[in-house]
Amino acid sequence: MTDSTLGVGMVGYAFMGRVHSQAWRNVTAFFDLPVAPAMRVVCGRSEEATAQAAQRMGWAGHTTDWRSLIERDDIHIIDICTPGDSHAEIAIAALEAGKHVLCEKPLANTVAEAAAMAEAAAKSSGRSMVAFNYRRVPAVALARQLVDSGRLGTVRHVRAVYLQDWIVDPEFPLVWRLQKDKAGSGALGDIGAHIIDTAQFITGQDIVGVTGLTETFIKERPLAGASDGLGASAAADKGTVTVDDAAAWVARMSGGAMGVFEATRFATGRKNALRIEVNGSDGSLAFDFEAMNELWVSSGSGGFERILVTEPEHPYVGAWWPPGHGLGYEHTFTHEIRDFLEAIGTGADPSPSFADGLRVQQVLEAVEQSNGTYREIPA
Amino acid sequence: MTDSTLGVGMVGYAFMGRVHSQAWRNVTAFFDLPVAPAMRVVCGRSEEATAQAAQRMGWAGHTTDWRSLIERDDIHIIDICTPGDSHAEIAIAALEAGKHVLCEKPLANTVAEAAAMAEAAAKSSGRSMVAFNYRRVPAVALARQLVDSGRLGTVRHVRAVYLQDWIVDPEFPLVWRLQKDKAGSGALGDIGAHIIDTAQFITGQDIVGVTGLTETFIKERPLAGASDGLGASAAADKGTVTVDDAAAWVARMSGGAMGVFEATRFATGRKNALRIEVNGSDGSLAFDFEAMNELWVSSGSGGFERILVTEPEHPYVGAWWPPGHGLGYEHTFTHEIRDFLEAIGTGADPSPSFADGLRVQQVLEAVEQSNGTYREIPA
Amino acid sequence: MTDSTLGVGMVGYAFMGRVHSQAWRNVTAFFDLPVAPAMRVVCGRSEEATAQAAQRMGWAGHTTDWRSLIERDDIHIIDICTPGDSHAEIAIAALEAGKHVLCEKPLANTVAEAAAMAEAAAKSSGRSMVAFNYRRVPAVALARQLVDSGRLGTVRHVRAVYLQDWIVDPEFPLVWRLQKDKAGSGALGDIGAHIIDTAQFITGQDIVGVTGLTETFIKERPLAGASDGLGASAAADKGTVTVDDAAAWVARMSGGAMGVFEATRFATGRKNALRIEVNGSDGSLAFDFEAMNELWVSSGSGGFERILVTEPEHPYVGAWWPPGHGLGYEHTFTHEIRDFLEAIGTGADPSPSFADGLRVQQVLEAVEQSNGTYREIPA
Amino acid sequence: MTDSTLGVGMVGYAFMGRVHSQAWRNVTAFFDLPVAPAMRVVCGRSEEATAQAAQRMGWAGHTTDWRSLIERDDIHIIDICTPGDSHAEIAIAALEAGKHVLCEKPLANTVAEAAAMAEAAAKSSGRSMVAFNYRRVPAVALARQLVDSGRLGTVRHVRAVYLQDWIVDPEFPLVWRLQKDKAGSGALGDIGAHIIDTAQFITGQDIVGVTGLTETFIKERPLAGASDGLGASAAADKGTVTVDDAAAWVARMSGGAMGVFEATRFATGRKNALRIEVNGSDGSLAFDFEAMNELWVSSGSGGFERILVTEPEHPYVGAWWPPGHGLGYEHTFTHEIRDFLEAIGTGADPSPSFADGLRVQQVLEAVEQSNGTYREIPA
Repeated sequence: MTDSTLGVGMVGYAFMGRVHSQAWRNVTAFFDLPVAPAMRVVCGRSEEATAQAAQRMGWAGHTTDWRSLIERDDIHIIDICTPGDSHAEIAIAALEAGKHVLCEKPLANTVAEAAAMAEAAAKSSGRSMVAFNYRRVPAVALARQLVDSGRLGTVRHVRAVYLQDWIVDPEFPLVWRLQKDKAGSGALGDIGAHIIDTAQFITGQDIVGVTGLTETFIKERPLAGASDGLGASAAADKGTVTVDDAAAWVARMSGGAMGVFEATRFATGRKNALRIEVNGSDGSLAFDFEAMNELWVSSGSGGFERILVTEPEHPYVGAWWPPGHGLGYEHTFTHEIRDFLEAIGTGADPSPSFADGLRVQQVLEAVEQSNGTYREIPA
Repeated sequence: MTDSTLGVGMVGYAFMGRVHSQAWRNVTAFFDLPVAPAMRVVCGRSEEATAQAAQRMGWAGHTTDWRSLIERDDIHIIDICTPGDSHAEIAIAALEAGKHVLCEKPLANTVAEAAAMAEAAAKSSGRSMVAFNYRRVPAVALARQLVDSGRLGTVRHVRAVYLQDWIVDPEFPLVWRLQKDKAGSGALGDIGAHIIDTAQFITGQDIVGVTGLTETFIKERPLAGASDGLGASAAADKGTVTVDDAAAWVARMSGGAMGVFEATRFATGRKNALRIEVNGSDGSLAFDFEAMNELWVSSGSGGFERILVTEPEHPYVGAWWPPGHGLGYEHTFTHEIRDFLEAIGTGADPSPSFADGLRVQQVLEAVEQSNGTYREIPA
Repeated sequence: MTDSTLGVGMVGYAFMGRVHSQAWRNVTAFFDLPVAPAMRVVCGRSEEATAQAAQRMGWAGHTTDWRSLIERDDIHIIDICTPGDSHAEIAIAALEAGKHVLCEKPLANTVAEAAAMAEAAAKSSGRSMVAFNYRRVPAVALARQLVDSGRLGTVRHVRAVYLQDWIVDPEFPLVWRLQKDKAGSGALGDIGAHIIDTAQFITGQDIVGVTGLTETFIKERPLAGASDGLGASAAADKGTVTVDDAAAWVARMSGGAMGVFEATRFATGRKNALRIEVNGSDGSLAFDFEAMNELWVSSGSGGFERILVTEPEHPYVGAWWPPGHGLGYEHTFTHEIRDFLEAIGTGADPSPSFADGLRVQQVLEAVEQSNGTYREIPA
Repeated sequence: MTDSTLGVGMVGYAFMGRVHSQAWRNVTAFFDLPVAPAMRVVCGRSEEATAQAAQRMGWAGHTTDWRSLIERDDIHIIDICTPGDSHAEIAIAALEAGKHVLCEKPLANTVAEAAAMAEAAAKSSGRSMVAFNYRRVPAVALARQLVDSGRLGTVRHVRAVYLQDWIVDPEFPLVWRLQKDKAGSGALGDIGAHIIDTAQFITGQDIVGVTGLTETFIKERPLAGASDGLGASAAADKGTVTVDDAAAWVARMSGGAMGVFEATRFATGRKNALRIEVNGSDGSLAFDFEAMNELWVSSGSGGFERILVTEPEHPYVGAWWPPGHGLGYEHTFTHEIRDFLEAIGTGADPSPSFADGLRVQQVLEAVEQSNGTYREIPA
């Protein structure tokens, strides 16, 4: 280990843990970084499953006690991949111990938790970042560059949707993402958070007020393990869905743009359609994650040009393959961790910060409480 | 002239008059109808221009006095193609004279006018229809059939936008469509009305409440004729835009669906993008008028199928060309007039009725007055 | 009738006759022309059906004798909409009588016939044009302008397909288009002729040699009226397909470009996909008739821009509707007849000429006879 | 090291070496395999550069002598990522030593070399596979499944293009891929080989004869290192391009289908467009690598359905991410190596074999020599 090697401890090894591991494992093969990550420990609740995950995903060790990670001197980075209800406790402890913290989104399940995390981040010697990975899609990063360079002129409209369909079936069980105590909210926090961050990132405008509605189409669902039950009555096999199935809102943005947003898990036939279109006085752009290597750009006078964002001069792309040889979902995490390590190594504040994550949380709360009434977001 | 020939008098010969004329001129060459239209008289304000329009577009005569049309016994149908501020007066007079009335949308500039028109329609022996032509796009009519047949299951989401960009340039002049006294409202009434009607038509669900925002990005514009002025000060050359440039709203619909709507003339690069997506429990569909011969349909289990709506069994299509030989904008009007004449000839009530037009007007008013507060639409 | 009114006699009233009629009926409502057509007489084989067609499509009279048309002084234009086996006889007679002749494509069923027609055209005082209507798609005309202006640099590649699927079913009957004596060839002459003309038109390069293959997948089909037969044996109910089902060829073009062409009626799921892509040293363009209002253009450095060819400055478009309000199949014929009348009125030679049609016929013959051997096209 | 660990030695560390390394590094994190690869040694010509490549890409050791790899007992697999002129020598030596061999495509630069390799493969105790990675795109593998299951009926048409544009600029230098002694051929062998393999793989039909043309548009180019030269004359700075820039051919296929193929590096604006469409009697499918997570499928009666090939039941996909979270270019190699290891571990013959690679080479040679004359491929 040299001075520039940073030990990583990752908490959680499910979907997010798997994709973070892929990023940690490969980032240095493609990017020149001032610091090198060492995959030291993965942490989970089940000893056996965690051990298997460690071996499969390339972690040197494993543990079932996340607090032990924080106490280790050879762990410099805590990567939080757990459900939202444990983010605050882990992150605050890690930040107080001076660790660098990468935390999955949404930052927390409540504004209060997010505020406490942002406060801990501000006080800590460790760097912190919230994992809005879609910023690191090359096409999205290019979109930001185009707006930032003035190519679109004054941004007038943002319309963003995040459409999935994995719970359309009423027999889909009541998993943790459908329980408010675990997930905080439903489509709103899970995927709505992404379009809030992406829209604000690309346009450089904050959401300053919203009016909207949320909806829970299927109000009861089978309990996740219910089908294994013996003799339980049908009624007892169901539980109440305590989060939204869908949310939509109209927003005012800080630069005068109008924003329209919608997040749903009931868009039959749409699998992971994070779509955003931005219209400015001099041009427009459009993106759909289902075709993540494309950015559509209008110069204003003509139509939309389909740019394959696979050229060496495009953000992040030079590290990878020749033009037309596209990237996939996992690369957004490799880019995210590249940016995180780069910031740590150069002593910069990573972005998006926990303060940014707090602000997203405030928008989520405003939408959740709106019920058709306009609510301003605290400055 | 036989009993089945109906004389038509058309008021207004600009954009809408031209396209209605094209429909009147050709409808009988493609559709078998119980009554045949005779293009008798076109009415405009300028004698000379109206005479030229009559000759070019195939009207037997012309006049500058719309009241004279109503008095003629050989005029059975009044086709209103004027700006919204004259709809009520002409339509009510025509209906009181027992004429059949086809009226351009939006039905009127205010709810009060629309209500009076609907009342006159209800009392009249003449048939009446409001000209929401996009219902007559074969793909939109097919969409309606699919929902109606249950193919989509319970409709959960409607998202509809109507995007244009023809006033992005701040030097674009203050034409009548940007003046509230002439046009009633801006993007909202002009194109927002179309997505309201299309969404309600396809889903079979009414909008029952809305919350939204409107915006006027460019508040002053050059007067339409200002550039011809002599010595006028620059300030005097500008006038105030009194309508919205854009409007967006979230809606609850009568069948429990969530609706999201946006109408704007500031979507740089979008020319006439009336887009609608409907998600149901068993399937979805999507449409974009910029590719008007296509309907995208998802069966739920897979992706979206691009159906070229040019097969003989598709609505209206059998009258035209072989598969793959698409139709254009004007055909929607030919279909509209076909349906109107069919209803007159068979003694049925054409749809959408003036009552339907009134209901659209109520939604428009609710959006206009919402300013971020939820408003219910009167039942 | 003024001096500038030209009487039209149309031969054939089926598919092509219907769409030509639509063009004759409407062309003057949209275009300012030096001469005005008068729809005088339609000619067909069945007295009753022809009379009905005349009434429906707006022809003043009808006849069953095409020679009578040629004798009439008030008929100045002969419009030939019959199958290919009668083109030569009618066209040559009309040209010898000094009539202007518009002839459907392919010009003839053989090179010999086409050569005789081209010779008659060269000698006649009448103007003549072969009806390659796809040149008159605004997007195709714009494509030609782009190449002609040098925007694409040196053209290196043309790849063009014309894909249909209407005879995939082996039970589809042996209609005239599948009989060599009537149609001359199959997919090759019917739709392959279009991509030859379109490719040569857009690139400005002629095909100078070809090597290719043709195929007849279904060699016997039910006789067209066979299902009405009484007691005929199954074998007797079938007839031999004497034309190609598909043809493909690689070509050298006069400017050094490589051409790849394919025409088939067996492309299941493709309805009328006339597609062409042109690659030049400085840019590219792509077109698909199934989305006929779009042209995709690459400037070379980026991707392809989807241009909605509905702007007033685009070819033919200014006469019609506002941006984004697309045209349909029939408009290509209205434009064709506009160009024909414009040429007649101004004393210019219409394009494509019968000589152009002959050259296409030579390419068709070379492909048909190639059987995998390279054949040069006579200069 | 257990019995099931196989040491890998990779020859070549440039573009192909980088992407193979990524696959070797990650394959076991996602796939359960009967054998585990150990990244032992990478081999290159420059000691220093090879050492750097080893460190960056995760190889335990490095060497500049590929023969030493073959002699090592702890190396069981030789992965050949060099230009085509060295494939035969390395592969044959490795096979004779009983190593398993994965060889980049095209298998060799000549039919003679490929034949010798296929013969060596047939005799060896080692397993061998040629690296046609595009078979391992999930959408392409799904396409194969659909044809194999009979969903498309009898396959009638294959049209495949591989379009790139990276040498359109005449100042692009004379790199090794443009020299016949190094690369064997140009676009034909480099990318044409891929569409031959992909077309044969999907349809299950072999190409049995071809007629086509090749073209070299830019006949001289700057020498690759010429700009560093001192005092050399301008003439001396250029060298002759000895391979094709583009190739196109029409083919007969073993099941009666017609094939049309085109490979070019002069398709301005196309970056890596490996496109294939297959039409059968009962359905069709279409694929474009520039949108590699999509397969378009027509059932015959309607249009084409865009299937996002990201569902757990799709080939290879279950190992990765949730629906809608697409894969990238590199994953095709991970899948390829997964299949290679699976075959080795289970004692099966990997596919495509060196015999398959030989057959592709025969087609390439036939096209190269065709010059417009039909050539049969040896059975």
